[in-house]
Amino acid sequence: MTFNYPNGQEYRPQMLAQRKLHVSSQSRRGMSLEADINAANEYYRTQKIAVIYKKPTPVQIVDVDYPVRAAARITKAFFRQPSTTDYNGVYQGHYIDFDAKETNNLESFPLKNVHDHQVKHLKAITEQAGLAFMIIRFTRRHETYVIWADLLLEFWQNQLTGRKSIPYSTIVKFGALVPDKLQPTTPYLEAVDLLMQTKKES
Amino acid sequence: MTFNYPNGQEYRPQMLAQRKLHVSSQSRRGMSLEADINAANEYYRTQKIAVIYKKPTPVQIVDVDYPVRAAARITKAFFRQPSTTDYNGVYQGHYIDFDAKETNNLESFPLKNVHDHQVKHLKAITEQAGLAFMIIRFTRRHETYVIWADLLLEFWQNQLTGRKSIPYSTIVKFGALVPDKLQPTTPYLEAVDLLMQTKKES
Repeated sequence: MTFNYPNGQEYRPQMLAQRKLHVSSQSRRGMSLEADINAANEYYRTQKIAVIYKKPTPVQIVDVDYPVRAAARITKAFFRQPSTTDYNGVYQGHYIDFDAKETNNLESFPLKNVHDHQVKHLKAITEQAGLAFMIIRFTRRHETYVIWADLLLEFWQNQLTGRKSIPYSTIVKFGALVPDKLQPTTPYLEAVDLLMQTKKES
Repeated sequence: MTFNYPNGQEYRPQMLAQRKLHVSSQSRRGMSLEADINAANEYYRTQKIAVIYKKPTPVQIVDVDYPVRAAARITKAFFRQPSTTDYNGVYQGHYIDFDAKETNNLESFPLKNVHDHQVKHLKAITEQAGLAFMIIRFTRRHETYVIWADLLLEFWQNQLTGRKSIPYSTIVKFGALVPDKLQPTTPYLEAVDLLMQTKKES
């Protein structure tokens, strides 16, 4: 005897597990860190947990065509150098500011993935008592970490004389691992919570 | 007998006053509210008082030409509907979020200057304990006010049955006047400070 869903589809106990597996492996294969974070932000906004957006790409608009009103078409524009990070917003009273980077490296996060203006901006945010951090994904390890901007700054300032990357072991030690979930797949604010707790205790 | 500045220019007691008047009237004539706020934000960043930026205009990029590397030219793009306000950032630990509007009206601020997505966003920010407000300039009065988003929301929700504008007198009563200064010309955070004090006392 078989049971059917209201839509007529046959019920099989293992279906949900299969679907979970499917969603999860697909999200790891197909989606970039940026897409994961955008999805997390949408989830956080809907659930009223936080209001965080990715900033639009800064563009210098030169020429615009108006064939009909309300259908303006930009015909000439240039990319401008951003002066901030990609993401900011508010999380239960806290100002949040971060950038997100992926690396294929296994043993370290190369500092060449980061730009000078991003480091300067994160430093300014820290000075204003905002929560400034970096989300780093080790793609081949399927692991995503949150580290405070302070840690990044320390390595950034020493890179002329010291090493030009942050060791994986340092990120594991001082960062917080973002758990793997179904919804959202990358709940990075849970890692931020962990880091905030550590800050209070230290 | 006349005194001279080190650069040889003659000292006249009324010069400073004249210059003040000149700068002030020029800023009122030539600069828009947006330019004033951008200048204030630059001042606040330089003085490490706050880190607040205007967000880039959201653009949907369709075609890009790469004649040479590092000189990408966007040849087809469209304006996207923004989902947030124009400005956000951090002010001594506080998350700040606002929009700025000018009106030529003398006796009221028309709600048609505001968009639904802006109101929804400011409401979401208030729910996250961020500081959400509106900067309103009465151009012909040469007066700029800061009001909490709460006040805007109240009038916004009542506009179907009630009036479709916020009276000038209400803005004067519940808002804070931005003082006129030389540097920056529109120190809007001073008005925010005033409003925060009132909030604590009430």
